[in-house]
Formats: sequence, C-alpha cells, structure tokens
Amino acid sequence: MEQQVKEQWEKFSDLLSKISGYSEAIELLHWDLRTGAPRKGVEVRSGTIGMLSGELFRLGISEEMGGFTEFFIRPEVITQLSLDQKKIVTDCRKEYERSKSIPSKRFEEYAVLSAHSQTIWEEAKENNDFETFEPYLSKIVALKQEFIDYWGVKGTRYDTLLDMYEPDLTVEKVDEVFSRLRSRLVPLVEAIAASPNKPDTSFLQQIFPKEQQEKFGNFILEQMGYDFDAGRLDESVHPFATGLNPGDVRITTAYLLDNVTSAIFSSLHEGGHALYEQNISKDFIGTPLAQGASMGIHESQSRLWENMIGRSRAFWQRYYSDLQQQFPEQLANVELEDFYRAINSVENSFIRIEADELTYNLHIIVRYEIEKLIFNEGLSVKDLPQVWNAKYQEYLGITPPSNALGVLQDVHWSGGDFGYFASYSLGNMYAAQILNTLRKELPEFDELIAAGNLLPIKEWLTDKIYRFGNSLTPSQIIEQVTGEPLSPDYLADYLEAKYTEIYKL
Amino acid sequence: MEQQVKEQWEKFSDLLSKISGYSEAIELLHWDLRTGAPRKGVEVRSGTIGMLSGELFRLGISEEMGGFTEFFIRPEVITQLSLDQKKIVTDCRKEYERSKSIPSKRFEEYAVLSAHSQTIWEEAKENNDFETFEPYLSKIVALKQEFIDYWGVKGTRYDTLLDMYEPDLTVEKVDEVFSRLRSRLVPLVEAIAASPNKPDTSFLQQIFPKEQQEKFGNFILEQMGYDFDAGRLDESVHPFATGLNPGDVRITTAYLLDNVTSAIFSSLHEGGHALYEQNISKDFIGTPLAQGASMGIHESQSRLWENMIGRSRAFWQRYYSDLQQQFPEQLANVELEDFYRAINSVENSFIRIEADELTYNLHIIVRYEIEKLIFNEGLSVKDLPQVWNAKYQEYLGITPPSNALGVLQDVHWSGGDFGYFASYSLGNMYAAQILNTLRKELPEFDELIAAGNLLPIKEWLTDKIYRFGNSLTPSQIIEQVTGEPLSPDYLADYLEAKYTEIYKL
Repeated sequence: MEQQVKEQWEKFSDLLSKISGYSEAIELLHWDLRTGAPRKGVEVRSGTIGMLSGELFRLGISEEMGGFTEFFIRPEVITQLSLDQKKIVTDCRKEYERSKSIPSKRFEEYAVLSAHSQTIWEEAKENNDFETFEPYLSKIVALKQEFIDYWGVKGTRYDTLLDMYEPDLTVEKVDEVFSRLRSRLVPLVEAIAASPNKPDTSFLQQIFPKEQQEKFGNFILEQMGYDFDAGRLDESVHPFATGLNPGDVRITTAYLLDNVTSAIFSSLHEGGHALYEQNISKDFIGTPLAQGASMGIHESQSRLWENMIGRSRAFWQRYYSDLQQQFPEQLANVELEDFYRAINSVENSFIRIEADELTYNLHIIVRYEIEKLIFNEGLSVKDLPQVWNAKYQEYLGITPPSNALGVLQDVHWSGGDFGYFASYSLGNMYAAQILNTLRKELPEFDELIAAGNLLPIKEWLTDKIYRFGNSLTPSQIIEQVTGEPLSPDYLADYLEAKYTEIYKL
Repeated sequence: MEQQVKEQWEKFSDLLSKISGYSEAIELLHWDLRTGAPRKGVEVRSGTIGMLSGELFRLGISEEMGGFTEFFIRPEVITQLSLDQKKIVTDCRKEYERSKSIPSKRFEEYAVLSAHSQTIWEEAKENNDFETFEPYLSKIVALKQEFIDYWGVKGTRYDTLLDMYEPDLTVEKVDEVFSRLRSRLVPLVEAIAASPNKPDTSFLQQIFPKEQQEKFGNFILEQMGYDFDAGRLDESVHPFATGLNPGDVRITTAYLLDNVTSAIFSSLHEGGHALYEQNISKDFIGTPLAQGASMGIHESQSRLWENMIGRSRAFWQRYYSDLQQQFPEQLANVELEDFYRAINSVENSFIRIEADELTYNLHIIVRYEIEKLIFNEGLSVKDLPQVWNAKYQEYLGITPPSNALGVLQDVHWSGGDFGYFASYSLGNMYAAQILNTLRKELPEFDELIAAGNLLPIKEWLTDKIYRFGNSLTPSQIIEQVTGEPLSPDYLADYLEAKYTEIYKL
C-alpha cells in the first residue's frame, strides 16, 4: 500500500471509529430506556437520542465521508486495499450515496412523520381504527416512493427497499423462493389442521414462578456459550438483543408467569443473536464490519438456536429433567414426549409474533406480497385491510375478525420499514440450509445436543459465520458455508419431516 | 427583546440543548460502566467516552459558541436578556475563554497524561510507592502551572484553580474561614480524644444481611422525598449520584455486610445530591442552569441530609425502631441513645473518606494548605509526603505509617483536580449556615424529623435552593438564603454543641 493511501486509511479509520462510538452511545441510551430508565426522564432522553442520531446521520453524509470514500473507491486505490477494507469502502459509499441523494428537507419531514405516525399507529391499534391511521400510512408510502426515485430503481421499485435490509437480494429471487416455500407449506398446514393428533398444550398454562424461570433461563444461556463477561441479561417488555460492541452484547427477556416457554425461547432467540455478535472478530472493532451481515443472516442465528436447536427433541432429552426440577409441581407428571409435542404445536392464528415455527413463514409471505403490491403495483393503502384479510384466508384459512388482529398488528409500516419483513423468513431458510451443512460436518449433531454439549456447535458457527461479521455479504456467507445459493427446500424439508412426525401425518 | 436577539437566542438554545444531550449520553455511559457494564466491553467503552467527551469539549470552544457568546455579551444586547439568560451567557463565555486559552496540543497532552497518571497512581497506592508516582504528579503540576498562566492569575495563582470549582471564591476568603474553623476544631478534637466518655461502636460490626439493608435504604430514600419515578438506585463499588436530566437523577450505594451504617449514610448523602438535581426548575432543562450551582453547594446538600439530619438524634428517634425491626438479632438489645452515640463516634484516623463528620474538615484543611503551598509557594512534589505527615501530626495528632495511608490515598491529584478538595468543607459550612436559617424558619425542625415528616424540609430547600439550579452563584445563594456571606462559625457552633454533649466535655 502506498504511503499516502496508508495515511488516508488511518484518518478514515478515525472517522469510522467515531461513527462506531456514536452508535454505541445511541444503543446504550435505547437499551437504558427499555430496561429501567425512570419515566420522568423519558421525554428529555428521547430528545437526546434524536439529537445524537442526527449527529450520526450527518457523519455518514459528511464531506469527510464523501472525500474518503471517493478517494478509496478509485480503481488505482481500491486495488491496494484488503478485502475487508474494500467491503468497508463500498458499504460506506453505498450508504453515503443513498443518504446524500435525499434532500435533507425531505428527510427531516420523513423523520418527523414516521415518529408521529408510530404514535398514531399505537392508538389506532388499541382502538381498532384503521381509518385514522390510513392517511399517515399513505403519506409514508408516498414519501418512500419518492425516496425510491432518489435512490434509484434497480429491477422493480420494491427491489430498492429489499436491498436495504438484505443486500443484493432481488424481488425475482424472493418471489421464487417464497412461492416454492408457500406451495409446500400451505398443504402441510392444511394437513396439520386436519390431523386428529393434536398435542395437548394445557399444562403449559399453569403458574410458573419467576425466580425458577430466571434460573433455568440463565442456565440455558450458559449452556449455549453466551458469555456473561461480554454481555448481561435484563428484563424488558419486549425481549431484544443489542450489541454495543463485541465485548458488550446485551439481551433482555420477559417472564410471563402463566407461560413458561415464552422466556425460554426468547432467551434462546436473543441468545442466538448475541452469540453472533459476541463472536465477531475483534479485528473489526470500530468499523462497520463489527456487526451482522444482514437482518436475514442475523435472524438465521436466532431462529437456528430458538427453533432448530431449542425446539428439537434432542435438546429436551438433555434439559427437560432440569426444567422439571425447577417446576416439579407443574411438570413432574408431564412426559418428555408430551412436552416436546406441546412446544411444537401448530395453530393457524392471527398474530405473527405469537405464531409457531411453521405458520410464521406464511405470516411473512402475506406481508411480503402486500408490500410488493404497494410499491410495484400501486395498491392503495385504503385497500390494505381487505387484501390482508383475503391473503390470511387463502394461506392460513382464517380471516382476522378485526384490523387490530390483522393489518394493524405490526409496528414496522408505521415507521416506514418496508422491505424488512422478508428477512424473518429468509432467516428461517438460511438457518435450515446452514443446519443441513452443519449436520453433515458434525454428524453427531443430535448426540451433542442430547449430551448438553452445545459448544462445538457454537464453535462451528463461529468459524463459519460469526467471526466474519459484516465482512461478507449474505450470499457470500450462504454459498461459502453451504456450497450453494439460498434455497427454500431445506426449510420445507425440515418442516415437513418434523411436523409429519409430530402430527403423525 | 429585539427580533434579531430573539432569533439568535433560539439558535443558541439549540447549541445549548445539544451540549446537554452530549452530557447526558456521557453521564449514562459512565453510570453504566460503574453499575454493571460487562468487563470485556470496558476498553471499547472507555474509548467511546473519550471520543464523546472530546466532541463535547469542541462544542464548548466551537466558532458557534464563540460567536453567540460574543454577540450576547455586548452591552447593548446583554441588557435585553433576562437574569437567567445573562447567567448562561457569562458562564458559557467564561468556559469558552478558559478552554480556548489553552493551545489544543497542550490540552491533549494533559488529557493523555492525566489518564495515564491515574493508572500509575492506582498501582502506586497499592504498592505504597510514592517514588514511581512522583514524576507523573510533578508533570501534572507543571502543566497546571502553565495552564494557570494561560487562564490568567486573579489574586494568587491558586485562586485560579479554586475558581473552577467554587466560582468567585478566593484564597483570601478560604484562608480566613478555614483558619477560623481550624482554630475551633483542633481543640475540640483534642478534648474529645481526652474524653473518657467514648461511645461503644462494637455492635455496628456485626453481620447485617443485604436484603434488609436494601429495604431500609429504600425506605429512607422514600421518606426523604427521593422520587423513584425520576431516578433509580443501583449498586456500585463507590456510591455516587448522577443527574442525566432533572427527570433522571440516579444514585448508587454499596452494601457492606459487616457495616450497617455505610449504606444508610451513603444513601442519605447521595440522596441529598439527588434531591437537589431532581428539584431544579424544569424551565432550565437543556441549559447549563439545570445543574447544581457549584461543588460546594452540591456538597452542602449531601452533607445536610447525611450528617445534620441523618446523624441527628431526632432522626433516629423516628427511624431506629424500623432499623431494629430489620435487624432484631443485631440491634434489639442496643438502646437508641447508644446507637446515636455510636454513629457519631469521633476518631482521629488517616483516611479522609472514612472520617467522621468532625475530623473530616481537618483532612480537607490539610489538603487545601498543601495545594496552596504547591501552587503559590512552589512546594516540590517530592516533599509532599513529609509535609503531609507533619500536617496530620499537627492537626490530628497522628502520623500516617505509610504513604498509602497518607499522601497517596486520594485519586484527585492524579487526575489534576487541584482546587476541588476545599468544596467538601465549604459544603459543610454552607450546610450548617443554611441549617441555622432553616431552624429559624421552620422552628419545629426537630419535631418534624422526629415525626418522620421530612417533606416540609425538602420543600423548604427546594424553594430556597434546589429550584434555582445553577442560575445563581454560590455566594448569591448563601446570602439570599441566610442573609449573610459564608461564615465558618455556624459549622463550628454546630459541631461544638453536638460533640460536647455526646462526649460530655
């Protein structure tokens, strides 16, 4: 590397490190707000988060950022960079151009509108009142359409949105994998609905004291290899994971007294997100590589730990007796097999975040198809409830009795997060495809789990995925790990096998 | 106010609000580091705090800050401002000029040196090794001397340092009050040492389970009127209070199993700091007025609550039975009067932070006199141990057996905080003087305390002091509240009366 390039890189690193620092501070302010900040400080705090987010945004579109990325992206310079450095430069440049392309006045309007709209949405959901929310959502859609023009349309208009959450993914590709997935899941869901062999889930609805739930949850996190010296576990209304830096990746959970599995699976889920971030290479600290590769890859890790490991028979062969020990009164007379079937019960329900591992994907496909209709076909916001309900009827065989239980249930659209939902099912597909390779390379996979020896699994995932952080794209990761591009068949195979057995289809 | 002035003020307010936001974020990052951040994240976190502190410092010396303060301070403009606005402008200008006067390269050297020196100090204290620490401390003193020249000498050189913590206070004034205080306290301490009537403190050294300590501590904070909706209580190695904003003023405590009074009095102490900040006028949010008036005034409130209320007989007349109820095994057979005398036991000891209410002031006077010798008389750092030990012998009648128990005990000097120590005793003097007025205006003061009716006291302090935040100078506050300038006699009177009775002198 030439001396000048080297010197410029050092200066650029300072800017990147500053950006990381702002992110860490903002993440902590958020975390604190959700885990225990006193209520009388919330208003000022929200202002502080807004101010620092503005500062962070300005760093991303600063002259400095423009100058550095323009310099490094020149053909005669970029060839002198390492692969990791190239990834940093191209990501920063992409982000810079994307943010810079929106006139700042329009962007501010959008920030104000989306904040306001989230408040309106909360009330609308509570009051089952789509009409009040509709004009706000319409404005958000209109602004997003305008932004798509600024950002530039690649493929279809909706491609531009998808790309923000899952780089390089296209509508063409998602259409293909989702339609293949849907065509295999819908009949499976129908067969399950028709099956007389329904698991009994009644014993899950007893009172499970919090203290024992905490003990068991901590134990499971330790077993997964979650490093409590590089993170902490707190309580919040909705569980989440947040990586302040690779040495400080926090998770939260919520203990429901009348539902023992909620906290267990949320710990496994958030624990999966956290294992990913805790094990990113320390060399990436202070750069944009010290984060997950995409929403979809991130979600693949939470789903793999929550569902494919945490809801497996092998897992409970090892841990069910521990759970029984914590709750002898509630579970002593429940057989392992009955417990296993109960935590894998499938039900066609209205609410995505309460859905089981199988039907969850249909909830996502509904949203993906609707978003595509909005942005590519001009579907009007006022027609959303009707389209929503028709799709639920078609794929899940149920029609939401109200908009609160239908189109109003998710926060995402009120904040303008179109293009995000697909990541959840992409995560499930990635996870099943990764699991398929993992089983080949660790043939004793089930035995390891059944022996409570989860660390080799964590090590394998670290070696193949975690340590790379954001230095590879999602498609590079999936091809490097599994030897082929994303395919929906692994997920469909996995679900068919699992549920055929459970429901004796 | 002219339109142009009004418009400029709005823009200036945005800058002030941004500065407040940075402070809030930095305070939270610090708070988190001391209350539960995972250890593997500490290194990156420290870098983040350093980076944001640099950003905050740059805002204070920015062209914007220079321009606004220059504009508002003009005679024809400043006359259009309210008193509060004037205070903001003069404070910001003072800070701007002070920071701006140091060449940035020298300031950075100082920041690096003082951070490094604190690490060296920690080791030196642990190893009782003044020689290793000495060259670092000498460099810090040399840089501070250089800074004094940049800042400008008012009165003596040491005046410039005092003014940073206690605006408008002079060496002349402190010399006068400290020497008067010392001349009354030294004979009192000698008389106590000679008294045969020593309180029995042995029962304080039992095992007091943490859970009950927590319960009692929380109860006392509620009784004081600490608003848990505008703050929270956590644990940390050293207790502290931190005001993120007036709606979020947090305190911490440390529970020592073998010392029941430590957590009680640290809660009263930090609770006093917190009551102050929680009750600052909400109008000041987002401005430099939303903080205490000075270190000394802040300390007056922690000391008033900790010592003058919390170590009073009336207080324990009300609360001792509650404490006994938490610890029946340990305290059922200990009489109220014996408890009261035990928590007010006086001992000539080596360590400032463990000192009692009375001798504490002599620890401070030693440090004040030494700092003055360093900066006004050129006392060499290498002679500090000898001077330190001689003064301890003279004022407290004891000679530290080691530098670890002597000159190396405090962190302040290693970080360059010269001029700070005086605030602690100024706080005690302010507190006693305020108490004297408070007793006149609330003649039923002791009865209120003995009835557990502490809120009228909190209200009085809010009305007279808290709500004004930093809108008044310390001397304005003390004169407005008590009708006269700072006097050491109230503290000396209070201590003499209290200890003459306890020690039957």
